[in-house]
Amino acid sequence: MIALLKDKPRLHNIIADSDTPEGKAFDIAVMIAITISLLVAFVESMPAVEGRFKFILTVLEYVLTFFFTIEYALRIYSSPEPKKEALSLFCIIDLMAIMPLYLSFIPCLSSTRYFFILRVFRLIRIFRVLRLFSFINEGYLLLQSIKMSIRKIAVYFLFVIILVTILGTIMFMVEGGQEGTQFTDIGTSIYWAIVTLTTVGYGDITPVTMVGRFLSGIIMILGYTIIAVPTGIVSATMIDETKKKGVGGRCPRCRQKTDLKANYCKHCGEKL
Amino acid sequence: MIALLKDKPRLHNIIADSDTPEGKAFDIAVMIAITISLLVAFVESMPAVEGRFKFILTVLEYVLTFFFTIEYALRIYSSPEPKKEALSLFCIIDLMAIMPLYLSFIPCLSSTRYFFILRVFRLIRIFRVLRLFSFINEGYLLLQSIKMSIRKIAVYFLFVIILVTILGTIMFMVEGGQEGTQFTDIGTSIYWAIVTLTTVGYGDITPVTMVGRFLSGIIMILGYTIIAVPTGIVSATMIDETKKKGVGGRCPRCRQKTDLKANYCKHCGEKL
Amino acid sequence: MIALLKDKPRLHNIIADSDTPEGKAFDIAVMIAITISLLVAFVESMPAVEGRFKFILTVLEYVLTFFFTIEYALRIYSSPEPKKEALSLFCIIDLMAIMPLYLSFIPCLSSTRYFFILRVFRLIRIFRVLRLFSFINEGYLLLQSIKMSIRKIAVYFLFVIILVTILGTIMFMVEGGQEGTQFTDIGTSIYWAIVTLTTVGYGDITPVTMVGRFLSGIIMILGYTIIAVPTGIVSATMIDETKKKGVGGRCPRCRQKTDLKANYCKHCGEKL
Amino acid sequence: MIALLKDKPRLHNIIADSDTPEGKAFDIAVMIAITISLLVAFVESMPAVEGRFKFILTVLEYVLTFFFTIEYALRIYSSPEPKKEALSLFCIIDLMAIMPLYLSFIPCLSSTRYFFILRVFRLIRIFRVLRLFSFINEGYLLLQSIKMSIRKIAVYFLFVIILVTILGTIMFMVEGGQEGTQFTDIGTSIYWAIVTLTTVGYGDITPVTMVGRFLSGIIMILGYTIIAVPTGIVSATMIDETKKKGVGGRCPRCRQKTDLKANYCKHCGEKL
Repeated sequence: MIALLKDKPRLHNIIADSDTPEGKAFDIAVMIAITISLLVAFVESMPAVEGRFKFILTVLEYVLTFFFTIEYALRIYSSPEPKKEALSLFCIIDLMAIMPLYLSFIPCLSSTRYFFILRVFRLIRIFRVLRLFSFINEGYLLLQSIKMSIRKIAVYFLFVIILVTILGTIMFMVEGGQEGTQFTDIGTSIYWAIVTLTTVGYGDITPVTMVGRFLSGIIMILGYTIIAVPTGIVSATMIDETKKKGVGGRCPRCRQKTDLKANYCKHCGEKL
Repeated sequence: MIALLKDKPRLHNIIADSDTPEGKAFDIAVMIAITISLLVAFVESMPAVEGRFKFILTVLEYVLTFFFTIEYALRIYSSPEPKKEALSLFCIIDLMAIMPLYLSFIPCLSSTRYFFILRVFRLIRIFRVLRLFSFINEGYLLLQSIKMSIRKIAVYFLFVIILVTILGTIMFMVEGGQEGTQFTDIGTSIYWAIVTLTTVGYGDITPVTMVGRFLSGIIMILGYTIIAVPTGIVSATMIDETKKKGVGGRCPRCRQKTDLKANYCKHCGEKL
Repeated sequence: MIALLKDKPRLHNIIADSDTPEGKAFDIAVMIAITISLLVAFVESMPAVEGRFKFILTVLEYVLTFFFTIEYALRIYSSPEPKKEALSLFCIIDLMAIMPLYLSFIPCLSSTRYFFILRVFRLIRIFRVLRLFSFINEGYLLLQSIKMSIRKIAVYFLFVIILVTILGTIMFMVEGGQEGTQFTDIGTSIYWAIVTLTTVGYGDITPVTMVGRFLSGIIMILGYTIIAVPTGIVSATMIDETKKKGVGGRCPRCRQKTDLKANYCKHCGEKL
Repeated sequence: MIALLKDKPRLHNIIADSDTPEGKAFDIAVMIAITISLLVAFVESMPAVEGRFKFILTVLEYVLTFFFTIEYALRIYSSPEPKKEALSLFCIIDLMAIMPLYLSFIPCLSSTRYFFILRVFRLIRIFRVLRLFSFINEGYLLLQSIKMSIRKIAVYFLFVIILVTILGTIMFMVEGGQEGTQFTDIGTSIYWAIVTLTTVGYGDITPVTMVGRFLSGIIMILGYTIIAVPTGIVSATMIDETKKKGVGGRCPRCRQKTDLKANYCKHCGEKL
């Protein structure tokens, strides 16, 4: 164990890669720990159930926090670039996920005054689920393709905002003044327009007048066409970019599989 | 300031283009003004909140109307073709958006009799949101591609109208005569058919009889296939046309970026 | 008028084609008559409104039935192949749409005993809306492409039926025995599965137990993927077939526009 | 009859293939038996109706079970590889579907104690519907293409799980502490996120606060884009793989139609 702590490269290999049997075992252990951690958070959020299992939940949380603290420390300790590692997305999430328990030991924070804030803060543990992304190659590519098309998504978002603002306002004009209407204000009407155009259709707000239903019928059919187009465009571009980047992650020279985050091929040194 | 008023081309450049730092600053100022104007309209529509902020809302509206009036006047004044500019879509929206406040000063219009009409009329301010389209290249292309495929959309619209009329009538035949049915008349049944075929599915009108549920199950599965096809065709054509026009807006001769609304390339004079 | 009645080919040209100004005018007259006929049927289905407009609705129906009877007679009379024409889809719809009024004159049928049957029968008038298909080229192609892929749709339909039967049964196993469940029987559970898989989601039947929600969550995500594939395949094939047939309807030899229902090109005689 | 029992290859041909008129007739008989079996199970699940038709339902079930028992026995008896056949998916389903009736004869199992278990167990009969898959070529291909892309679906599944966990948690943070909220715990919030992202939108859980509606509006629009991409990718890959395998199932050498499950072309012996 102590030998391993001294052999930084090997430790880093176990923690960061999954090439070796040890690395794979470590990965699976982390995945199981994350899953249990999620289940604990789910159960804790149910007041009825939480009371019954309070003891085991508390124990599990202490154990898991201990495990993730060790893992966090080892990851930064073994990293060739500790500072860069500490500022990576997954390390920040990890730190935020283990902090709440330690913060609850500070007396002034555990008072009832900060109880609600702490409760919300502890939910950040659930964001650990994001680390599962690192276990799937396609997941990383997806995140990257989203990052690359962020401008396209922003434009699309603005387009939809304009559309739903106009449609929501028109529906508010038609249904707003009616008796017993659910279109009480423009914000609600715009919320209705979003729910309708994305075809989610909760049904918590629905038109009741003849004119309102006639109009929303037209909105649905037209909107279905108009919103399908930018969604199609954004999706098509994102798929294109994913393809260009190469889902397989193969080196263009030696055709061997490369690491996704690598800048150079680890087999022939080709720049990727 | 007065020097600027005399230099019409430069003024026009600031207002209509966003190439210069001044033009960009002006654009951002307009965007912020539109956003605030929208928020004011949203808050005003909520009776509970409006009472509390009545003063600040009134002040904001006066300031914004003043700003948009100046902007409207300058835009038309600085334009090389004032008449054409005044009849452009965005100028008409602008005029309609600033009019309500001025109209409310006319005593006979501010009477309670016309109160409701004026209230609805003032909502036109929200249509200012359409001006945001001019800030996104893709938005302009989208509007144009919609304009180009207007006939295709009309055909598709007619197709869906025929489909939902038939399906709505069939459901009315089956469910209409039942006790406690929500399919009270054919109009409502057609509204249900639209809500169902577009997969919005509010659930405000649902079949309750066995036969009705059986039939609507078939309608959903078949309709899902049949409506997916024309939607796919319309979307595919619109994406095609957008591609042909070129999203990049590059000149086919010199390959440099061109203005979207330009008829000639501003770099080499090539007709676009 | 009588001269026109004797000139069968010209009469046929006016009724069946829309090349000549007269033919176009006739088409528009028919479209207006269909639209009014639909509106009359819609209003008649609303008991509250129908009482008030009873007189005008009755008059309109008599006039429209008279118009459609004349049109029906002329179409068959002027057709080069009256028998084939009489058995065409649109003529059958037309006959069924004008029959109910004449049937109501027969004393024994207008008794209260047959009242409900007659009321349902009269709704067939609404099926006149199908004739609007003949006014749009794409509509005709669509109908044909649907007719061509009828086997594919049948297979897809069977696939969805199998899927929803299994999913509905599983949900009935999980939620069926619970207190206050909405999954009262397997038929209802399958109806729920259809509503869920097509993403319509009325919300009239929803899972309430933990296990039921967990399961239906998985069903939604998996089903979303699995049902998207056959829908995509069917749509893709139908678009392909539409393309092959040619949306433009041009002759492969002389490249001129041909009539959609023509078997030979009217410009060069090429077999289509 | 006895001659047929001795002619194993011919018997196998009738049961397993549908090339001969006898084989086709047998297939249709099985399809009808499955359909009736499903209808019996549907009606049995409705307590109100079941009482009235108890006798005929019991008779039908005995007859069908007898039929499927004979069919099951013959299929295994006539198979060239009885052991492999007995372990095939469809034979296992069949065995599970006929077992419940025989089990109900065992006295200790038919007691009220095991009544509920037996009731659930008997629903397995409905899984017979899966056998219909074997009657459609495309159905078999679909199942195989799903089997081939199982890893892709798993990755996509994990991606959606991560997404809805995060979105559900955020909504629970915002709406969870409110009075009269429907977001009672994280599990429920994640269920809401799934219902929303897949655009099913039951409406059994909806945001009521301003912030919650604002947030869920953003989730819908963004999620609509983000979830459309992986769905598109998975579907595209599955369609690709189906195409590669060849929907027609033709031999690459002699271009003649081959059996779907064949490893060698039955016309020229080419390995497929």
